[in-house]
Amino acid sequence: MSEQIAVQDAEDRIRPSINRTPVLTSSYLNELTGKKLYFKCENFQKTGSFKARGALNAILKARSIGPVKGVVAHSGGNHGQGVAWAARQCDLPCIVATPSSAPQTKVDAMRGYGAELVITTPSMTDMADTAYRLVEQTGYTFVDPMNDYDIMSGQGTVAKEFLEEVGHLDALVVAVGGGGLASGVAAYVKQKKLDCKVFCVEPANKNLQESFEAGRSLMPHGTLLDTIADGCRPHAVGNKCFDVLLECAEHTVFSVTNDDIRKAMKLILERMKLVVEPSAAMGLAAVLKYKEELKDYENIGLVLCGGNVDLKTVVDLL
Amino acid sequence: MSEQIAVQDAEDRIRPSINRTPVLTSSYLNELTGKKLYFKCENFQKTGSFKARGALNAILKARSIGPVKGVVAHSGGNHGQGVAWAARQCDLPCIVATPSSAPQTKVDAMRGYGAELVITTPSMTDMADTAYRLVEQTGYTFVDPMNDYDIMSGQGTVAKEFLEEVGHLDALVVAVGGGGLASGVAAYVKQKKLDCKVFCVEPANKNLQESFEAGRSLMPHGTLLDTIADGCRPHAVGNKCFDVLLECAEHTVFSVTNDDIRKAMKLILERMKLVVEPSAAMGLAAVLKYKEELKDYENIGLVLCGGNVDLKTVVDLL
Repeated sequence: MSEQIAVQDAEDRIRPSINRTPVLTSSYLNELTGKKLYFKCENFQKTGSFKARGALNAILKARSIGPVKGVVAHSGGNHGQGVAWAARQCDLPCIVATPSSAPQTKVDAMRGYGAELVITTPSMTDMADTAYRLVEQTGYTFVDPMNDYDIMSGQGTVAKEFLEEVGHLDALVVAVGGGGLASGVAAYVKQKKLDCKVFCVEPANKNLQESFEAGRSLMPHGTLLDTIADGCRPHAVGNKCFDVLLECAEHTVFSVTNDDIRKAMKLILERMKLVVEPSAAMGLAAVLKYKEELKDYENIGLVLCGGNVDLKTVVDLL
Repeated sequence: MSEQIAVQDAEDRIRPSINRTPVLTSSYLNELTGKKLYFKCENFQKTGSFKARGALNAILKARSIGPVKGVVAHSGGNHGQGVAWAARQCDLPCIVATPSSAPQTKVDAMRGYGAELVITTPSMTDMADTAYRLVEQTGYTFVDPMNDYDIMSGQGTVAKEFLEEVGHLDALVVAVGGGGLASGVAAYVKQKKLDCKVFCVEPANKNLQESFEAGRSLMPHGTLLDTIADGCRPHAVGNKCFDVLLECAEHTVFSVTNDDIRKAMKLILERMKLVVEPSAAMGLAAVLKYKEELKDYENIGLVLCGGNVDLKTVVDLL
């Protein structure tokens, strides 16, 4: 599984177009946690999240294999923005099946990158069916949100940059939604035989821990979790991502509630002066909550995976 | 004047302790302004502002010349934090004369870095007199907020890093309070004979423009401007700073109102997802306002000089 993830190839493809995002630290948060925490700022990535990496890699890879007339995705969030942006980088038309529940800012952003939107009901099944139909009608190439090795490879470039900049991470703590980022990161670390453990953080009730213990996914596809971390709302991890995580990530999963996330988001805002989306605060939430499990790890890398949040949501925290 | 500013020496001294801050861009703000804007994020500097640079340089330089028993400063804001932090880096005691009007967060931060505070009335004269008396009583070394070549040299390292990272800046637009940052930046650019103009941005009614035209400072010392940009509240630029600016900076000064600053601060928050203090938004405010004066400049560098702002202030913008 994980050997199909090719992070160096992905980096070679996407390097000219993506930001090498900064790594920030906070002496306050280091004192608070008794750790050395490193925050990789994918909130400053193109489109405001790491999703630009995987989307661009998948499109460029597809085009290196054969002709690509255009691209289709389904998303109401960061993946849609990533694909719309990446398609524009490649001068390709882009259609995104978007639920009617998508926030106006994300809709505007996708249109701003030139994507055509097809509005669906707020159901993952309807979104996926619509995207499938669009692919059939247009002959465009489908860009999966996570369950694809080229997507995972693109997201894995986060880990490569991170470990190049901070050479001595004992652990990486990564939020898991569909699993594209975490699997790319975990596979890269394993391939490089680095002395660094990759831990997954899930929104409460995802059951990733139980799935690892069972050795197979117990997470239902097509449904959403009730979490404020909208980037991690899909209940299930992609099947391919799950296999990679089972092989490469630690099987101790950190589970965080909305309150845990709010508390961490507020700290990041107040102490790091960064506006991040709730999913991006899950790593810090886990470090604050799972002290015992992390007691042997001093240098810990966290990915601020995105900054796309309605400012009203942020104000409600204060 | 400006030949007394030694940025390379300052950088050699402070490099191990300060952050090389990231430079961020925003495609939205580029489209909005028709420019390529580069934002040097001194809001991510130690203590949350560029002031850490000059303070550390001044203390290290003083110690290279003779014994330093401790340091004294007067400040209710970023300079006090910078000096308190720098003193701790050097294992020196630190006393700061602080006005009773200083925000609690800044008071807490200075104490957090180990400084002893002596509270004064909210008058610049009282603050300066108190600091002078403290120096006499203790034999500690005074660290000026701006009117000192070592301070200017330290702040000038912002320009050196910035121009190393973005090689092709046509203009740098820098907010002016006491003038330490702007003079350090302008002197560095002139010494290096770079094809880059340094423009000053002032809060309305500072009269820097008129002072340049008169060839001497018309700005009264000891009084404060009525501006939300608390980092730029002193009416007068330091005398030494003024001479450097007269020699090295453009004589066209950009003047921005509270409304201009609020609008820019809101854009930085909404589009760059950064919480910055009002002074840090003055550069963008000037770019948005002085289109005609900046029409020949494409690549413009702006310094997000600090991030120390009460979050309630930020919320009031939304």
